[in-house]
Amino acid sequence: MERQTKIDLNSDVGESFGRYKIGMDEAVIPLITSANIACGFHAGDPSVMRRTVALAKQHGVAVGAHPGLPDLIGFGRRAMDTTLQEIKDDVTYQVGALQAFAATEGIALQHVKPHGALYNMAVTRADIWEAIAEALAAIDNQLILVVLAGPNREAIEAIRSRTGARIAFEFFGDRAYNTDGSLVSRRQPGAVIHDHGEVAERVVTMVKEGTVTAVDGSEVGLKADTICVHGDNPQAVALVKEIGGVLAKEGIEMAPTGTFL
Amino acid sequence: MERQTKIDLNSDVGESFGRYKIGMDEAVIPLITSANIACGFHAGDPSVMRRTVALAKQHGVAVGAHPGLPDLIGFGRRAMDTTLQEIKDDVTYQVGALQAFAATEGIALQHVKPHGALYNMAVTRADIWEAIAEALAAIDNQLILVVLAGPNREAIEAIRSRTGARIAFEFFGDRAYNTDGSLVSRRQPGAVIHDHGEVAERVVTMVKEGTVTAVDGSEVGLKADTICVHGDNPQAVALVKEIGGVLAKEGIEMAPTGTFL
Amino acid sequence: MERQTKIDLNSDVGESFGRYKIGMDEAVIPLITSANIACGFHAGDPSVMRRTVALAKQHGVAVGAHPGLPDLIGFGRRAMDTTLQEIKDDVTYQVGALQAFAATEGIALQHVKPHGALYNMAVTRADIWEAIAEALAAIDNQLILVVLAGPNREAIEAIRSRTGARIAFEFFGDRAYNTDGSLVSRRQPGAVIHDHGEVAERVVTMVKEGTVTAVDGSEVGLKADTICVHGDNPQAVALVKEIGGVLAKEGIEMAPTGTFL
Amino acid sequence: MERQTKIDLNSDVGESFGRYKIGMDEAVIPLITSANIACGFHAGDPSVMRRTVALAKQHGVAVGAHPGLPDLIGFGRRAMDTTLQEIKDDVTYQVGALQAFAATEGIALQHVKPHGALYNMAVTRADIWEAIAEALAAIDNQLILVVLAGPNREAIEAIRSRTGARIAFEFFGDRAYNTDGSLVSRRQPGAVIHDHGEVAERVVTMVKEGTVTAVDGSEVGLKADTICVHGDNPQAVALVKEIGGVLAKEGIEMAPTGTFL
Repeated sequence: MERQTKIDLNSDVGESFGRYKIGMDEAVIPLITSANIACGFHAGDPSVMRRTVALAKQHGVAVGAHPGLPDLIGFGRRAMDTTLQEIKDDVTYQVGALQAFAATEGIALQHVKPHGALYNMAVTRADIWEAIAEALAAIDNQLILVVLAGPNREAIEAIRSRTGARIAFEFFGDRAYNTDGSLVSRRQPGAVIHDHGEVAERVVTMVKEGTVTAVDGSEVGLKADTICVHGDNPQAVALVKEIGGVLAKEGIEMAPTGTFL
Repeated sequence: MERQTKIDLNSDVGESFGRYKIGMDEAVIPLITSANIACGFHAGDPSVMRRTVALAKQHGVAVGAHPGLPDLIGFGRRAMDTTLQEIKDDVTYQVGALQAFAATEGIALQHVKPHGALYNMAVTRADIWEAIAEALAAIDNQLILVVLAGPNREAIEAIRSRTGARIAFEFFGDRAYNTDGSLVSRRQPGAVIHDHGEVAERVVTMVKEGTVTAVDGSEVGLKADTICVHGDNPQAVALVKEIGGVLAKEGIEMAPTGTFL
Repeated sequence: MERQTKIDLNSDVGESFGRYKIGMDEAVIPLITSANIACGFHAGDPSVMRRTVALAKQHGVAVGAHPGLPDLIGFGRRAMDTTLQEIKDDVTYQVGALQAFAATEGIALQHVKPHGALYNMAVTRADIWEAIAEALAAIDNQLILVVLAGPNREAIEAIRSRTGARIAFEFFGDRAYNTDGSLVSRRQPGAVIHDHGEVAERVVTMVKEGTVTAVDGSEVGLKADTICVHGDNPQAVALVKEIGGVLAKEGIEMAPTGTFL
Repeated sequence: MERQTKIDLNSDVGESFGRYKIGMDEAVIPLITSANIACGFHAGDPSVMRRTVALAKQHGVAVGAHPGLPDLIGFGRRAMDTTLQEIKDDVTYQVGALQAFAATEGIALQHVKPHGALYNMAVTRADIWEAIAEALAAIDNQLILVVLAGPNREAIEAIRSRTGARIAFEFFGDRAYNTDGSLVSRRQPGAVIHDHGEVAERVVTMVKEGTVTAVDGSEVGLKADTICVHGDNPQAVALVKEIGGVLAKEGIEMAPTGTFL
């Protein structure tokens, strides 16, 4: 196996709306390599999108769309019984809206990462990943779809070959994993790892060894291209800094997925 | 003066929303050359946008965005005290969203025509036309901005040269005109011309002579590239057919603005 | 068993929104005894609510709220993963909004019937019926909750005694029933009965005999206080007329649930 | 003139939305006597409304509705070209929605204060005050309408007698006044008074003397029943505390308008 030398750090940003502010975008964007920008359905608005694209560009951070379900009041976190066609249409709409702001800044979108309930719905239903992949391939076949690394790798590879979509696998350094490579549900105790040192170590191990320690202590093979990090509060931003520092010390380059996939 | 031999017929379409249906798109789209497609703020939704773009493509009709104010309940017809930056951001968002559906169908957007109150606000404030022109130039400098033909021609020409935007002038065959080339307010009696024959004749005269008969009977110079027609009801569709028939008889070719501007 | 001599006919009305029109409210309201008025989350808007309450009052039709999920684009027909507290809050909000229009007309709300996916979610989860019953009891303990008649009768009776809510059971004359008294899923062939004569006969049988013929031909006990009818199109309105005519011939009085529960 | 011994302190609260938080409601509500609660059109949501009503009740603070224009993205701060009927309908809807949450807590709404652009529109157009007063009188003639104290007192008194509405006049301690008793526009320098001591003194003077010092140094007669205070940030909350302290020292009782109007 080829040794991985590059990794992407992605974070959800641009989640403010009108007079409402969420997140520490100014602090976290300089620390990451890919920005997932909300597109107005679950968070974000046209002015926030414009400012967030500009901020990402200013810091050389690759820009991606973070489309969500049409549920502003629920922040896109409530699963909805939508059809695959509705998902494709909603994703197309949101990706296009963000593309226009990227065009205005003279840059292209790198990736698309579904938000919240839409992401979680896709994790349990490969036909949703496929619907989104088809939508992206139709808009611009260079767009990278970010999917959860884990047990559905074969299904995802099949989608990749059927749709021609570029795909990046995502790892959560602060989440516990089951032995099959799936995430431990947030409803379980210990699902989220709070110790910064442990999170940073798990990130390095995943990048260098392609493994993660599961909840039963076993080593599980898991290969990913991008790490999800958060910028909601000062502690989260401190963790991103720590992860960046450890990666640098280990000689692992942080780079947007579009540069090495 | 060069004799005008081509004219565009544009109509607002794609105004349905969810289970709500407005307009006779299937009937009117085959009769026009440019479709102004609602983008979700005042009307339209992602699925309607997809279907409307596909329908326009199927009939060889050029596709444009019809962005409106964020006021679904008011159908974008209520003026709002927005900033120029908000207008630019809202237009950018909506144009981008429609571009993605056009990309999915393998076509490019031809034009952008603001809807309702946004259009009316721009007619009375050239800085709004300029803001929209700037937004379009930044997204894609091939996009054509549709503006009302009339007394503000000089201001519009200045915007054209400052922004580099492509601009099409619009004529309303079913509206009365003042002697300065502005529209008679809808609040005035006689503002709307209901006789189909008279409307068709006014269209032909504007195309062939570059003039329109004002409310006081005088001939007013008025040159336009595109005629606004409606498809809300069977009578409106019949009028579009009549206009098309008369134009054909007069040897005037109907063609999308993008082909002759 | 006491012979039932009164029955309520309820219909969903007030579903228009802004410039969008749905339903034939003017035609159907004079034919029914209880109006379920949309409250702005899945359909309806403040002006439509005002006009619909006035129209119902004018025809002596009892007024009720028809609260839905916050999903205008999906017409409240897409199940959402909401909490019970969110459901209570959303119902309270919508019921209150309609109460104000009723107060303006000098009348009180009679009932509340959840719409679409919210109704269907409650049918499969008694805790949702209970949450809604609790919300109504807290707002005004005279409000009648309309629930589907069928196999969950015991659970509903338990909710009635726990919350003190008034409850009306609903029958669908145009739907096939399983032997346990539940509705045949719309995904099954024959789920909807289209023959007007057959629908009217089923309504009369349910009222007079307290039974319905299930899909396997057996007689199933089913007692209800109100019949759901539709006013979406001329044929639906004709069916309501037919049902009304047959009920009159059989000497069954049509009356709002509030007058006989 | 009877010496005024009571004054109301009102503040806009309940402006959070979904995951978005605005304001320091827990800190400011214990310091005021009347809470203006957002109703979901420009801010607030059903769950926030429920929690805010409960919080106000817990502190013995009177509850009122703070209805706004339907413009969440603009926080209700952008004037819109609405009809008087639309304003009445939108106010009725929002007041009703909040009434249901108040009913759930066993309390009645005391007052209604329009928000942002709706308030500002009414200040310049008495027919808007009148439309709102009519809406309130029709819902519940005990509801108190909060209007800006100032030069339109006669027009307001005429509305009071025509509609029978209860009306409270509002004073802004932190705003400069013109000699006619109107507010100095925020676009003018010095429109907002930042010195806490000065604000508290102006409040006391208005209450005790029925005057305010205008921008030209002259004393202007101005009588009001309620003072608008803010809870957006720690400094604002500190100012409310200071005002409360000074009023207590002066022997002026703070009480909800409903108790003394």
